[in-house]
Amino acid sequence: MLASAERAGRHARRLSAFGDVLGDAGFAAAVVSHPRDLFYLTGTAQPCNLLVVPGEPPLLAARRYGDLVREQAAVDDVIDAAGLRPFAERLAELGVEGPLGLALDVVPAALATKASTTFGDREIADYSPLLMEQRAIKDEHEIEQLRRAVGLFDAAHAAMLEHTRPGIAEHELSAEIARGLRRAGHEGHVFYRRWDANLQPEGLLASGPNLARISGHAITITGVGMSPALPFGASDRRLERGDLVVIDMGLNYRGYHGDMARTYAVGEAPARAAGLIEALRAAFDAAVDATRPGAPASAPYEAAVRACEEHGVAQWFQGYGADRGSYVGHGVGVELDELPLLAAGQTMPLAAGMVLAIEPKVISPEFGGLDIEDTVLVGESGAERLSSLPQELFVVR
Amino acid sequence: MLASAERAGRHARRLSAFGDVLGDAGFAAAVVSHPRDLFYLTGTAQPCNLLVVPGEPPLLAARRYGDLVREQAAVDDVIDAAGLRPFAERLAELGVEGPLGLALDVVPAALATKASTTFGDREIADYSPLLMEQRAIKDEHEIEQLRRAVGLFDAAHAAMLEHTRPGIAEHELSAEIARGLRRAGHEGHVFYRRWDANLQPEGLLASGPNLARISGHAITITGVGMSPALPFGASDRRLERGDLVVIDMGLNYRGYHGDMARTYAVGEAPARAAGLIEALRAAFDAAVDATRPGAPASAPYEAAVRACEEHGVAQWFQGYGADRGSYVGHGVGVELDELPLLAAGQTMPLAAGMVLAIEPKVISPEFGGLDIEDTVLVGESGAERLSSLPQELFVVR
Repeated sequence: MLASAERAGRHARRLSAFGDVLGDAGFAAAVVSHPRDLFYLTGTAQPCNLLVVPGEPPLLAARRYGDLVREQAAVDDVIDAAGLRPFAERLAELGVEGPLGLALDVVPAALATKASTTFGDREIADYSPLLMEQRAIKDEHEIEQLRRAVGLFDAAHAAMLEHTRPGIAEHELSAEIARGLRRAGHEGHVFYRRWDANLQPEGLLASGPNLARISGHAITITGVGMSPALPFGASDRRLERGDLVVIDMGLNYRGYHGDMARTYAVGEAPARAAGLIEALRAAFDAAVDATRPGAPASAPYEAAVRACEEHGVAQWFQGYGADRGSYVGHGVGVELDELPLLAAGQTMPLAAGMVLAIEPKVISPEFGGLDIEDTVLVGESGAERLSSLPQELFVVR
Repeated sequence: MLASAERAGRHARRLSAFGDVLGDAGFAAAVVSHPRDLFYLTGTAQPCNLLVVPGEPPLLAARRYGDLVREQAAVDDVIDAAGLRPFAERLAELGVEGPLGLALDVVPAALATKASTTFGDREIADYSPLLMEQRAIKDEHEIEQLRRAVGLFDAAHAAMLEHTRPGIAEHELSAEIARGLRRAGHEGHVFYRRWDANLQPEGLLASGPNLARISGHAITITGVGMSPALPFGASDRRLERGDLVVIDMGLNYRGYHGDMARTYAVGEAPARAAGLIEALRAAFDAAVDATRPGAPASAPYEAAVRACEEHGVAQWFQGYGADRGSYVGHGVGVELDELPLLAAGQTMPLAAGMVLAIEPKVISPEFGGLDIEDTVLVGESGAERLSSLPQELFVVR
């Protein structure tokens, strides 16, 4: 009962806060249909639509399986309805003025048009910037889930230590990581907000020359995948002695995503690898030092650039040539790509309660690529890593 | 060189056919940004935009990594451009009249609005029904890929035979399947067209009472998942002797999805299972017999219903009570949910070259659920299964 009351309280707080920001921004209401937004606000990703009206209790419409929705959702008022007509009727009864919010960055155009028809000539506007800003600050429960998500990386690391060897193919090694993560409780899917992004649940794995082949939707170390149908992640390339191998993954525990990466060497480390890892550690530490409440979201990136300059690796930082990223990290939560973006020019102020992935990399066709990524929690006086795994180059013999 | 010429020829045919249907439907052009549509038309899912104008050569804009796009795409005219302005200029040069097609069922509303602004006051319309109809008929290369995709199921079946035992948890068994599929060459991700659908790469796994708990976005046997964050697929329930276990999966080989399911029993089969499997086999055979060129897409479903009535299992066919599906299958291809839908009321004519998943199930809280699913190829005189795995209840001792 206590756990359940705590759960109800936390979703009530999230719903009430979202209602407040909608009201402040002049919205009459928001209709939430995106499963990740539903999960954050109500506690379930079952197929539903949710009506949030500032100052009114939320109304949840179960598109099907009403019994499961009533069991899982922390919302009192649940009706069974496939469409949005009951929401239009509720708004008409309440007589509230102003635009209707939808997640226009996610919801397909045809669905937005259909919703717009249901609500007459009411203006439709994007609620996502408001909700994403709210979601950037995690509550205690979310921090606990994210801590556990980060803990899943141990299973991937164990698989790397056990199975990395000359002759194994990238996708065979990825298979062992997939097995380890799923056994450890990974949900088996990684969620992005970006409509055209996806990632295998075991994340990216790249080795040797594939470390410097930047491919697919993500900037920086991506791997090349099994085919042009999904041109990133593990390929069928076989590892060779002396190769570097990077794994980088979204770790989904109960809907929350940690994000971590480490670099391994097969049998022996290339000569310059130790120096490059040291530079990455310095860049990571500099980024963490700059991650303080009130600093702009660009600060960790600028600090990492300076550290790379001091270590003479700036020309390889986050890519090389024309394909360079000017960022060092991003928020994580119920989606892997949350606010803030830790990148050049970003002004969103960092704040306590943010959980951020910080991911300095060096990439070059000369040596391939190396990556250290950790997920950190921003506190009142600075940021702390959620994993205690050493940030070293792991040589697997 | 031969392989490459054949590849260029097949994409040229697809592009030209799509241009023709666009022209016939009165479109000035289509802008293709959805990675699955891009992969089908050009051969790569790299981040691109594609302009298709009826009767004109296609123009591909690489959003980044132009070198990889030029290497992978079977399109001659490739430019480097992040946005759509070059397409607007091309259309203005050509002076073509009519609406501009976008994939409005997939592309987010905000992106469609932005595109609309770039193209001035040109009407925007949905190209997806046209392309999905074209994609319903597979060419020889696609059929070969789908045959290989179906072959991936052998790895899942082998994992089930090796690891099914009392005491193993659903997610631990799923982990072994995930490993086997990835080692066998599964791309590690399953693609849906539906914006809010997703599936773990190792598919659904449900056992015992979870077989009759219908949850999440898919009708019929779903499993309940690890948490309400992703409420379908394997849970942490541990198998018991005498349990039934269903696995149902999208099998992604080089971007093409087979779809197969089988039912297993732990140690011994429940008394009525043999009769239920026999009924499912009869329903499957009846649906395949009804899958003939020219028949409406409802015919396989109606035939399966009649077979279930004859076997006395109609009350459990595709669900029970209020949660019943009135379908027996669907097309598969570069997405798992393609045309046609084999369901009540569907009038699309079946045709040679279609590849269809046929999936009769019986579900009830009395016995749980059983499922036989196979992917079939429609030929001139009927349909053939792409897998030779027996459609039986596998008792794993």
